[in-house]
Amino acid sequence: MRKILVIGSGKSTSYLLKYLLSKSASEHLHITIGDLNVSNIKNLLHNHANANAIPLDVFNDQERLKAIKNSDIVISMLPASFHTIVAKDCVTLKKHMVTASYVSTDMMSLDKEAKKNGVILINEIGVDPGIDHMSAMNVLNNIRDKGGTILLFESFTGGLIAPESDTNLWHYKFTWNPRNVVIAGQGGTAKFIQEGSYKYIPYQRLFRRTEFLDIEGHGRFEAYANRDSLKYQSAYGLENVKTLYRGTMRRVGFSRAWHIFVTLGMTDDSFTIEDSESMSYRDFTNAFLPYSHKDSVELKLRHELKIDQDDVVWDKLEELDIFNANKKVGLKNATPAQILQKILMDSWTLSKDDKDMIVMYHKFGYELNGKKHQIDANMVVIGEDQTYTAMAKTVGLPVAMVTLAILNGKITSPGVQIPITKEIYQPILNELQEFGIQFNEKHVPYLGYNPLNN
Amino acid sequence: MRKILVIGSGKSTSYLLKYLLSKSASEHLHITIGDLNVSNIKNLLHNHANANAIPLDVFNDQERLKAIKNSDIVISMLPASFHTIVAKDCVTLKKHMVTASYVSTDMMSLDKEAKKNGVILINEIGVDPGIDHMSAMNVLNNIRDKGGTILLFESFTGGLIAPESDTNLWHYKFTWNPRNVVIAGQGGTAKFIQEGSYKYIPYQRLFRRTEFLDIEGHGRFEAYANRDSLKYQSAYGLENVKTLYRGTMRRVGFSRAWHIFVTLGMTDDSFTIEDSESMSYRDFTNAFLPYSHKDSVELKLRHELKIDQDDVVWDKLEELDIFNANKKVGLKNATPAQILQKILMDSWTLSKDDKDMIVMYHKFGYELNGKKHQIDANMVVIGEDQTYTAMAKTVGLPVAMVTLAILNGKITSPGVQIPITKEIYQPILNELQEFGIQFNEKHVPYLGYNPLNN
Repeated sequence: MRKILVIGSGKSTSYLLKYLLSKSASEHLHITIGDLNVSNIKNLLHNHANANAIPLDVFNDQERLKAIKNSDIVISMLPASFHTIVAKDCVTLKKHMVTASYVSTDMMSLDKEAKKNGVILINEIGVDPGIDHMSAMNVLNNIRDKGGTILLFESFTGGLIAPESDTNLWHYKFTWNPRNVVIAGQGGTAKFIQEGSYKYIPYQRLFRRTEFLDIEGHGRFEAYANRDSLKYQSAYGLENVKTLYRGTMRRVGFSRAWHIFVTLGMTDDSFTIEDSESMSYRDFTNAFLPYSHKDSVELKLRHELKIDQDDVVWDKLEELDIFNANKKVGLKNATPAQILQKILMDSWTLSKDDKDMIVMYHKFGYELNGKKHQIDANMVVIGEDQTYTAMAKTVGLPVAMVTLAILNGKITSPGVQIPITKEIYQPILNELQEFGIQFNEKHVPYLGYNPLNN
Repeated sequence: MRKILVIGSGKSTSYLLKYLLSKSASEHLHITIGDLNVSNIKNLLHNHANANAIPLDVFNDQERLKAIKNSDIVISMLPASFHTIVAKDCVTLKKHMVTASYVSTDMMSLDKEAKKNGVILINEIGVDPGIDHMSAMNVLNNIRDKGGTILLFESFTGGLIAPESDTNLWHYKFTWNPRNVVIAGQGGTAKFIQEGSYKYIPYQRLFRRTEFLDIEGHGRFEAYANRDSLKYQSAYGLENVKTLYRGTMRRVGFSRAWHIFVTLGMTDDSFTIEDSESMSYRDFTNAFLPYSHKDSVELKLRHELKIDQDDVVWDKLEELDIFNANKKVGLKNATPAQILQKILMDSWTLSKDDKDMIVMYHKFGYELNGKKHQIDANMVVIGEDQTYTAMAKTVGLPVAMVTLAILNGKITSPGVQIPITKEIYQPILNELQEFGIQFNEKHVPYLGYNPLNN
């Protein structure tokens, strides 16, 4: 039996375990899952003979070292900042390791020793980052193999609510960490390249500079720019590309309404609001508007942001109950972002039968034999229920597949890696199709941003 | 002879020296002014018998200690962050010290030892901070002495261009550190109190939430909120005040136009622009606008910010030449804020004969014998020329006066202080009147923000 240790059992662990258990007989796998709290895990294991759960405190050196020593490979599903605690032991004890998170500076610093010890540390192999890397590199490399030159690469991902569960005016519910949604776009100006020009969008304009994306059978989406569009420029080999843009997808109309919260200051996470505990939702809204003894909070907001009486954005605000004088915030020393999150969770928390949806959209512009071409590729995955979500599926399956590939000696290069090499992505993309995770590729006329160049 | 050491000879040193030299015979003063570069100082000393200039590198311990040892009192006119280097020596060597800058955490940490050694460290005794403290405390204490209760305190200051030198559409020129103007309002949400409610204005709305102030004979001004309106709440004894607001004054229309730069992201100082050196002013503007192969930078900006064809704000933008394709930025690895500063300095640098102007406006609302009252007090100081500026006068005179008061034993409490006690501010406010620095006080009907309470 090959022994797989999974540390942490968050929202994405369901599919990961389902896949590994399904392969456990044929592939001779034993899965041990360690978490602080073991009780939640039992439901996912279904008393499977090839799996067991152990209580594991990742900050307890003895417990952690013992569990890692007793395994052949480790999957860390812990919060991103905890991975390196595990990774350091893995490098020392010569165990391979897989995570779905971004490569941190701490993780990167282990690269040299990992290579020396022959240890493989694969990261960013969930959905975003993960499937985006793999699917993009697949098309990019196919184009390059044919002799094409990449002119444009744009990539968009969204974690959304499935159409059948889309019951509010924002067409949005929290299918993942709500906090990340509230503070999205903060921490710096978005930077990208369009037709060879660097472009910059500050936070205060981020949600007003969206673009539309249509997916056949799924309707129209919009996307706002990620801060880090250029992050993978050299990893993807796109140093000479004319257009490079990465964005986050929402349903149309979300961003224009969200911009109101940004403008008022409600998404700020850098200071605490006075008396936040006892204030009402209405008080909170009013704190960002001028004092008036006679005008209503509603009219002050309409006037401040010039919102017409018949603007649909108003209905979105009202739906969230931000003018309610009876609902209390009830959070001590809370930041605006924390209070807004609380208000949104009243409206955007998933109901028992709600399903999530992952959407991804890539555009590849290229020149081949003197002609310009474009491929648009998109993927839509809809969750089954609140355990087997689209998010858990698109994160957990690639993590599980790469783990097996390492165990089976299909991946051999040691060190800190992301899935951008063919040896890693090709078999996984192929196998993901069996689970309905596949890209719909279409050749379209090259658009770019300057038709005069076409 | 009492020996005064002045360290640093910046823009505000002219009036300081003029005053001290004029008193040097009657008060038996000898003034030594130390600076890295002595040549500029000679013009200010006019070969006066009671003064000399010495080369002084404040980071050279030997030079610094020698100069301080050889003095009875020290005035630091250095950049704010350098004061504590001098202050530490002053505490050790038991020399009193005066600065016009905000009390830093480092400075405050010297309080205990200064008190132990009987050393007086007076700070914030320029114009803002300085004259604002003194004039406000004077009126506040007069009201309280009569038995009044303070309901409202608002205080506004502006460093502007004198009307006779006001030659541009912004009614603004750089009379002080340009960088501080460009990054003004950054670093956190503005917080203040109106009618008992805490109010918050994020940076992205700061320049759209202004209020008007009229000064008889000088016309209308506008003010935007300072970040730190509550900073002196307890120092001023205003814990129970209903309205507390501090702001920065500009001529009307400045803020609405400045808001355009804020919104576009041009004031950001946290990242560098690619290829900043070779870009034109037009390229810089275009970097914050969407790519288009057919639309002009002008129309993209008008559309992005919904600026009507006949809006006066447009003329302000054109006046700054931000659409000029021939003027080069010429700054390597520059932040947007640095580039914007360069562009503004083309238009807003003082001409040889330009004069500056300092304006200050306080509002005091109070209740006395069951009735509500209000006092409005304002001050306007216009500079004489580019050496004897209003800024140099309003900073240098109080610094010089307090120095003499310490030497003459009129101020005796040791430790780190700001000028909010009567023993300090009363004689200085009286003497400042002889120099034309005086407040025009007027009783007006109490306005507050809620007439239903009046």
